[in-house]
Amino acid sequence: MRRSPRDTTLVRPLSLEKAQGLLDRFTSALPSELVTIANASGRVLADDLRLEAAMPPADRAAVDGLALSARETVGASAYNPLPFRLGLGGALRAPAGQGKLVAAGDPMPAGTDAVVRLEEMPDAAAALEVIEPVAKGENVEAAGSHAPAGAIVLRRGWRVRPHELGLLASVGRKSVAVMPRPRIRIVLAGRGSPRDENGPMLQACIERDGGAVRGPPARVEGRAAIAAAICAAAADLVLVAGGSGTGLGDETAAAMREAGEVVLHGIAIAPGGTAGLARTRLGLPVLMLPGAPAACLCAYELFAGRAVRRLGGRDPGLPFPTLRTTTARKIVSSIGRTEMVPVRRRDDGAVEPTGSFAGAALFALAEADGFVIVPQSSEGCPAGAACTVYLYPERPKEHRPEA
Amino acid sequence: MRRSPRDTTLVRPLSLEKAQGLLDRFTSALPSELVTIANASGRVLADDLRLEAAMPPADRAAVDGLALSARETVGASAYNPLPFRLGLGGALRAPAGQGKLVAAGDPMPAGTDAVVRLEEMPDAAAALEVIEPVAKGENVEAAGSHAPAGAIVLRRGWRVRPHELGLLASVGRKSVAVMPRPRIRIVLAGRGSPRDENGPMLQACIERDGGAVRGPPARVEGRAAIAAAICAAAADLVLVAGGSGTGLGDETAAAMREAGEVVLHGIAIAPGGTAGLARTRLGLPVLMLPGAPAACLCAYELFAGRAVRRLGGRDPGLPFPTLRTTTARKIVSSIGRTEMVPVRRRDDGAVEPTGSFAGAALFALAEADGFVIVPQSSEGCPAGAACTVYLYPERPKEHRPEA
Repeated sequence: MRRSPRDTTLVRPLSLEKAQGLLDRFTSALPSELVTIANASGRVLADDLRLEAAMPPADRAAVDGLALSARETVGASAYNPLPFRLGLGGALRAPAGQGKLVAAGDPMPAGTDAVVRLEEMPDAAAALEVIEPVAKGENVEAAGSHAPAGAIVLRRGWRVRPHELGLLASVGRKSVAVMPRPRIRIVLAGRGSPRDENGPMLQACIERDGGAVRGPPARVEGRAAIAAAICAAAADLVLVAGGSGTGLGDETAAAMREAGEVVLHGIAIAPGGTAGLARTRLGLPVLMLPGAPAACLCAYELFAGRAVRRLGGRDPGLPFPTLRTTTARKIVSSIGRTEMVPVRRRDDGAVEPTGSFAGAALFALAEADGFVIVPQSSEGCPAGAACTVYLYPERPKEHRPEA
Repeated sequence: MRRSPRDTTLVRPLSLEKAQGLLDRFTSALPSELVTIANASGRVLADDLRLEAAMPPADRAAVDGLALSARETVGASAYNPLPFRLGLGGALRAPAGQGKLVAAGDPMPAGTDAVVRLEEMPDAAAALEVIEPVAKGENVEAAGSHAPAGAIVLRRGWRVRPHELGLLASVGRKSVAVMPRPRIRIVLAGRGSPRDENGPMLQACIERDGGAVRGPPARVEGRAAIAAAICAAAADLVLVAGGSGTGLGDETAAAMREAGEVVLHGIAIAPGGTAGLARTRLGLPVLMLPGAPAACLCAYELFAGRAVRRLGGRDPGLPFPTLRTTTARKIVSSIGRTEMVPVRRRDDGAVEPTGSFAGAALFALAEADGFVIVPQSSEGCPAGAACTVYLYPERPKEHRPEA
């Protein structure tokens, strides 16, 4: 067939590294935002959490009980029970021979330095008997024992773990500065009925990466409608899935040439090589992704997701834990393109490919525990070679839930 | 002090294993529910996904282009261009020498078995010239090549990964049966102002474990109010934080003795030993958790979280990836109690404790990468011993987000 490509930018696609470099120039972290502690789980801290005061700020009771002076319990025994009266008042020093009832967490009353658990409390009791000596500091959380003033407890860039909400609350924080959720608009472009496989998939990927998807995906056909949907987006970033290629119905790049500027079109990745970056006249970045789901996924993971994470102030790298291991079988890849290859972990810890996107589309990932990235300069990995695996969350191996 | 405990069940706490065994008798998986694909990310599949038809169900175009019969391209070359006319109609067999325009994903027209990418298309073209032979199957996704009919692609009990939304959609699913989100009510009980550290922390833990927290936590004081808040809960499970002990203001167990039945009170775990299980007269399970945040967290992780996961049909075990490694330093623990000990991973892969909950409360976890569980029968782990670490999600090591 005669060849005179409609879009010459795809003839020599950019390397993934160069494409990422360009992407980085158009995406930087949005301003941080304050959220209440109750809404902070999983968010990325925008500031270090530095303690203003030591924790606890003063000696406090670790248990419910009777606060008293340990010194005054010397000599107590079953044969020599020492009576303690319950002192009254709050800030007053407990007089000799008196104790004060405290609840766990209460500051220690002046003149007391230990707490005895109250396990018997006659209704009308005015005196209690101590029958063994108590050590100074017993059942007391000493000032500064948890952490000193000025300590950096949590760091900028860390995702807040569930229990850290308790930590933040326990140091008196009501709210915390976190990295923003970039607002992302998804546009599905294509002829007739655009593929809708990509909408839910992209939404879930974006949310995993800290973005907030605005509205249901727009479904549009034709150059003018694509451009209009993009330019109308109230968002920090637009992802267009479909129509990224150079075929007859592929109008996304053409739409962006009219509505703004195509920054790059064609990246040396497989699948997903028709991905690109554009921006509107107002400077809104637009990521063009292929419509075939496996290609769309790869272009998201290797390229578009980076923009979401950068806008949200996250680590721009892939959001998966990595494992250094070896290949159990040869991994085939084509030279000249960075490839995402699904792999399975074997019992011996080595990994083997589960299938290729070219051969099995998204089914290649069904049995995969993660994937390896074979760089552009490589034809694959021979068996036994060292490799880095990007791991999906573990699946239960044995568990079969009850009916 | 004279000892005649008010609540004798705490004198001999149950082992964690026995407590979990009792808990399991009161919690089993709720019925599954149908959700749309767009809402299925992260949900746990209630059924295997078995393909009714092969995928793709029929040969289809892998790219936009001209579908034709490969046989008819034999002999094509730049010196011998073979003209193809564009055939009309949909289901008709393409006559010899004709091709049909197809978009990626279209079924292959009868009589065609290959697709040539259309990279030149004069506006008024009625004929195209093929200048090299095409192999049968080129740019065609063959029926069944992705997966055969009957294949089990995803399994019951697996959490749906983002890209699996694309997979589900691509096999024509609009909705999918998933394990339910158990409805959980949080009650904060205590004297005066109940500690509010626990509300956000428990909510985040519950959501991590697949539960849905109903409303903001109820904050109640006193036996009658605690019982009323529990019995009014429209939920599958109630978690009461605070008041679980045997001190003066500890009314949770007493409230449950009046409003139902205390099944167990006191578990041999540290911290968190005052945790317990009760149920209302209507059979609603109630988990009693300590109010001190570190104790509350441990009682949740070691005990209560199991109930949330069981109700939701998830693996009842801890929801963390595990790592088998060795201890770099001795881990101290008290015999007779199962202990959760925060640890840090060192560069050599071994782990060392970061602090104890007894000494540093939740601050012990701030620098931790996870925790080990020292069983009741052990006094700890000597340096160099094998251990299993439950790992929190990885933190960025180097990354410092831009301002």
